[in-house]
Amino acid sequence: MDVYLVCGSKSDLGVAEECKNLLDSFAVSYRMFIASAHRSPDKIDEIVEKAEQEKVKVIIALCGFAAHLPGVIAAKTTIPVVGVPLDSSPLLGVDSLLSIVQMPGGVPCAGMGIGKSGAKNAAIFAIQILALKDQKLRNRLLAYRKEQRDKIEEANRELSY
Amino acid sequence: MDVYLVCGSKSDLGVAEECKNLLDSFAVSYRMFIASAHRSPDKIDEIVEKAEQEKVKVIIALCGFAAHLPGVIAAKTTIPVVGVPLDSSPLLGVDSLLSIVQMPGGVPCAGMGIGKSGAKNAAIFAIQILALKDQKLRNRLLAYRKEQRDKIEEANRELSY
Amino acid sequence: MDVYLVCGSKSDLGVAEECKNLLDSFAVSYRMFIASAHRSPDKIDEIVEKAEQEKVKVIIALCGFAAHLPGVIAAKTTIPVVGVPLDSSPLLGVDSLLSIVQMPGGVPCAGMGIGKSGAKNAAIFAIQILALKDQKLRNRLLAYRKEQRDKIEEANRELSY
Amino acid sequence: MDVYLVCGSKSDLGVAEECKNLLDSFAVSYRMFIASAHRSPDKIDEIVEKAEQEKVKVIIALCGFAAHLPGVIAAKTTIPVVGVPLDSSPLLGVDSLLSIVQMPGGVPCAGMGIGKSGAKNAAIFAIQILALKDQKLRNRLLAYRKEQRDKIEEANRELSY
Amino acid sequence: MDVYLVCGSKSDLGVAEECKNLLDSFAVSYRMFIASAHRSPDKIDEIVEKAEQEKVKVIIALCGFAAHLPGVIAAKTTIPVVGVPLDSSPLLGVDSLLSIVQMPGGVPCAGMGIGKSGAKNAAIFAIQILALKDQKLRNRLLAYRKEQRDKIEEANRELSY
Amino acid sequence: MDVYLVCGSKSDLGVAEECKNLLDSFAVSYRMFIASAHRSPDKIDEIVEKAEQEKVKVIIALCGFAAHLPGVIAAKTTIPVVGVPLDSSPLLGVDSLLSIVQMPGGVPCAGMGIGKSGAKNAAIFAIQILALKDQKLRNRLLAYRKEQRDKIEEANRELSY
Amino acid sequence: MDVYLVCGSKSDLGVAEECKNLLDSFAVSYRMFIASAHRSPDKIDEIVEKAEQEKVKVIIALCGFAAHLPGVIAAKTTIPVVGVPLDSSPLLGVDSLLSIVQMPGGVPCAGMGIGKSGAKNAAIFAIQILALKDQKLRNRLLAYRKEQRDKIEEANRELSY
Amino acid sequence: MDVYLVCGSKSDLGVAEECKNLLDSFAVSYRMFIASAHRSPDKIDEIVEKAEQEKVKVIIALCGFAAHLPGVIAAKTTIPVVGVPLDSSPLLGVDSLLSIVQMPGGVPCAGMGIGKSGAKNAAIFAIQILALKDQKLRNRLLAYRKEQRDKIEEANRELSY
Repeated sequence: MDVYLVCGSKSDLGVAEECKNLLDSFAVSYRMFIASAHRSPDKIDEIVEKAEQEKVKVIIALCGFAAHLPGVIAAKTTIPVVGVPLDSSPLLGVDSLLSIVQMPGGVPCAGMGIGKSGAKNAAIFAIQILALKDQKLRNRLLAYRKEQRDKIEEANRELSY
Repeated sequence: MDVYLVCGSKSDLGVAEECKNLLDSFAVSYRMFIASAHRSPDKIDEIVEKAEQEKVKVIIALCGFAAHLPGVIAAKTTIPVVGVPLDSSPLLGVDSLLSIVQMPGGVPCAGMGIGKSGAKNAAIFAIQILALKDQKLRNRLLAYRKEQRDKIEEANRELSY
Repeated sequence: MDVYLVCGSKSDLGVAEECKNLLDSFAVSYRMFIASAHRSPDKIDEIVEKAEQEKVKVIIALCGFAAHLPGVIAAKTTIPVVGVPLDSSPLLGVDSLLSIVQMPGGVPCAGMGIGKSGAKNAAIFAIQILALKDQKLRNRLLAYRKEQRDKIEEANRELSY
Repeated sequence: MDVYLVCGSKSDLGVAEECKNLLDSFAVSYRMFIASAHRSPDKIDEIVEKAEQEKVKVIIALCGFAAHLPGVIAAKTTIPVVGVPLDSSPLLGVDSLLSIVQMPGGVPCAGMGIGKSGAKNAAIFAIQILALKDQKLRNRLLAYRKEQRDKIEEANRELSY
Repeated sequence: MDVYLVCGSKSDLGVAEECKNLLDSFAVSYRMFIASAHRSPDKIDEIVEKAEQEKVKVIIALCGFAAHLPGVIAAKTTIPVVGVPLDSSPLLGVDSLLSIVQMPGGVPCAGMGIGKSGAKNAAIFAIQILALKDQKLRNRLLAYRKEQRDKIEEANRELSY
Repeated sequence: MDVYLVCGSKSDLGVAEECKNLLDSFAVSYRMFIASAHRSPDKIDEIVEKAEQEKVKVIIALCGFAAHLPGVIAAKTTIPVVGVPLDSSPLLGVDSLLSIVQMPGGVPCAGMGIGKSGAKNAAIFAIQILALKDQKLRNRLLAYRKEQRDKIEEANRELSY
Repeated sequence: MDVYLVCGSKSDLGVAEECKNLLDSFAVSYRMFIASAHRSPDKIDEIVEKAEQEKVKVIIALCGFAAHLPGVIAAKTTIPVVGVPLDSSPLLGVDSLLSIVQMPGGVPCAGMGIGKSGAKNAAIFAIQILALKDQKLRNRLLAYRKEQRDKIEEANRELSY
Repeated sequence: MDVYLVCGSKSDLGVAEECKNLLDSFAVSYRMFIASAHRSPDKIDEIVEKAEQEKVKVIIALCGFAAHLPGVIAAKTTIPVVGVPLDSSPLLGVDSLLSIVQMPGGVPCAGMGIGKSGAKNAAIFAIQILALKDQKLRNRLLAYRKEQRDKIEEANRELSY
């Protein structure tokens, strides 16, 4: 198994789609969970243990409000954890962003951008880690980048009319 | 045992003094710990278990950066948890404040002010909870309030010269 | 009487419902008021006096803008005061949050999260204080926590399909 | 009596000097107090009552942290209240500024800038109100403005060398 | 003439209504203008000159974005200027608030809250200044306050059902 | 005359040195002034008039607090105005930055970074405008860029030891 | 060619219209592009090279999120670059604003306001640079300013009814 | 070669020490560079090319102000890039943090905390990625974690005296 995708709440599944779609399109294997650092702390232990057994390479955790989820997972494993802050509270995701990136020295948690674009980038970042030992995946990433460039070129051509 | 006082790091002991001094002067029994939500997650379990055994009434947790400590404790007990955000990171304590108060619905954590005045107030707030069933303690609180008023009166008298 | 619930304005009643529903479901006795620290300062005195007479254990105050209400109540009683900042002004509740938590040393006010989740948590926090001397209530809290965990487990099962 | 100058704490007297010096140099009569909205709420009542008796025209209140002082005074009188936010907490005075200006509709409180320049401006603003019915004072204000302009002219002359 | 009400842009007239309605209901005389510190700097000079001729007591300026309008007016007269920050830019009114209150020492500008409640309070604050020399107006202010209290009492009565 | 350099206060001269040194080293002609949008509004008119007479190409204005200076200058001329926000107030320059960039549509003011690096960049930006019609100056800019690159190369060489 | 207008993404074209309309109405020649500092870095090189060949006077870059686009362009040319921060991320454009203005010393990038008014002002600012050597354009700018003043006068006349 | 460590400026070398020390103590091979996204854009190309040749697994980029460096590197390679925001500008590192994490969808950049603790965590995070295929390194990480726990236990023992 390559990636674990953990949502802090059922209501975060919508944003997690951005992540899933990219993992799917890169044919990366993943498993999805809902777990709350506060409402189901034991669930976290269970997920982390399973992740270690399944030799997961990256754990992506999406979470809003005081987003402790990524940090609490990171505290229990050496698997790299990528946190996606969500703007589900009134504070636009600033609470969530700071709760994720401002981890004290010793236990890192990689912060992505707030919301949908962060969810997308978490998937890409995980794929970049996987691609370090998988040339095919790396080629797909290069193809994905080319696609992005091509879309921009096309948009420029449309402008000329 | 009345209160548990948990610091997120050895470097937070200075601010915790504000808390200790007040608990001492109100003759409230307490025990002090250092524990990190990220660097020593099992220590948290140990402290919470002991707190339940010792019938602790309030757990005060002081923490800087992405202050997960109070929330992570709150997730494991129904004892009221009071969080004190510290300004130990470059962000003036805003990261810590939001990590403490912005808990998702279901698992509360009571936020105090940032730094020394918050540490002081955490002690007073704990004493207020204890005083609900302890008239002597309540009288001491009233005496403490009177002292504060008297100091202000005295300061006003000094102004008149 | 267990809890007093004070709204800073009639327009805050909607958010206060989150609080009421939880207090109701835990069968905690409470009384509700509307009072403004600025528009009806004497009403505050009246409420506090009555709270002391009725041996209220926790006062929850919900308030937006420069939320002085919780602090002004806290200044007049030793009953623990829990403040819920609301995002009713254009500033997303930041004004209200800082007005509540940044109390100077000596008179604490326990801050919850901004808006609905904060209102919910204020109720839970009050119940946690009440449960310190009420084993039945504590059992209900444990049951409530279990319910939350069960919902998450169920959500995980739904994901597997 | 023209002006009342209220400090939220003894430690604010230093910044209040900026205010006092200007009131002195304009020969405006004032009285100074220390009073805390939270630690000495009754003192506020006493000050406001006296202010009304002495027909005070402006009340200036300097305060740090969650600066409720100006708003709490404003709630008890129709005398114009000018609030000066101080940067005495770790939040640079933002907490104090928002606690002063974000008053709900109905009870205003005039906010000045944070710290020393705000304290200065509070004095000038009070003098501007007094000058509405005092042509001599207005002339002094015009002279003060001219002085400021002259200093700038002089600074420009120094630049030319 | 008692009050001048200056809007920074035609699109601010809606918020200014809050101000107008209160001035109307207190039978305070006022004149309304639209003027931009940047797009019509000479208009400012014209308004200030006229204000001095008409012995205006307070100038209220409502403005969004980098709200220079109140400060630019204040620079040209000793009549007290009250600034109302508006949340017309994407920054929720923070830009406007800071542009108004953070005036350098020497030229004050009184800041109200952001948006509608600030507009309301600007009117009340102006009336408070006018009431310093007008006992009738002061009585009306006291009646207005009583009305506010009565509304809150009524809301409390409704709660009891 | 190429550039006018206007400081909002005598105390800003230190930061302005960063600007001056660069203008000097590029042999760009400039004149320096101190002028306050609030304390010396007429001085602004005088400076702008002179700037137009001397066919100045860029006006650089450095200013702290509610930095109205660049905007107020921009309102009176079509010469491009570059504003440098200073962190002289307790708000780290955020007040000044927003007062400069958040100009309403129609009267632009180009914002640089806060403090010394902004002052430096204001000079470079002015030189870039001048270089549009001055190939020699453009060559110097290219040489300056090369120097920067060379310094970085040298720093890299030092790292290798 | 006078101006290059670069959008960071196809979705920014709507805001860019504000820019285009003004450039059109001033009959300024421009060319429009879509280019991303991250998704199409080579496109940036191509645009900059072409800009230098076509002797472009100003490059306007509109961009949301971590808006590197203006800075990355500025790093590769001495043509003045004007950056327009967009509020397309959840952070209201603050991320974009800081990414644009906080450039390190040596490579400036001129920041405009966030969103539509910033886009408008970028066009005006570019025209102001062009007008330095084009008296006709300067006259049009003066006429545009007069139009703005006239509109305000008209709005004032409407108020009188 | 395992890791590339890129500093945005010579003055960032002090903070980079935190990173280096950890990489050294884990015996991870790395190479260090100074490169600026703006002052030496071509240097970035050179570093990225070399990184690909040397089969580098993680690129760590430390940068203050508008920290484009990590994003600009990320745009040119599929090697995972970890960005460390520095508080070298007056904005406490907020500018740098947002410039790093708020990358638009498609090109991710992993954000760490601001300053020293972020630099430390960047090293640990890189080691976690390397440890995915290196059991020895993983054992060292587990030992490092144990050390952290032991230090906390020791600190707790000291408290008991």
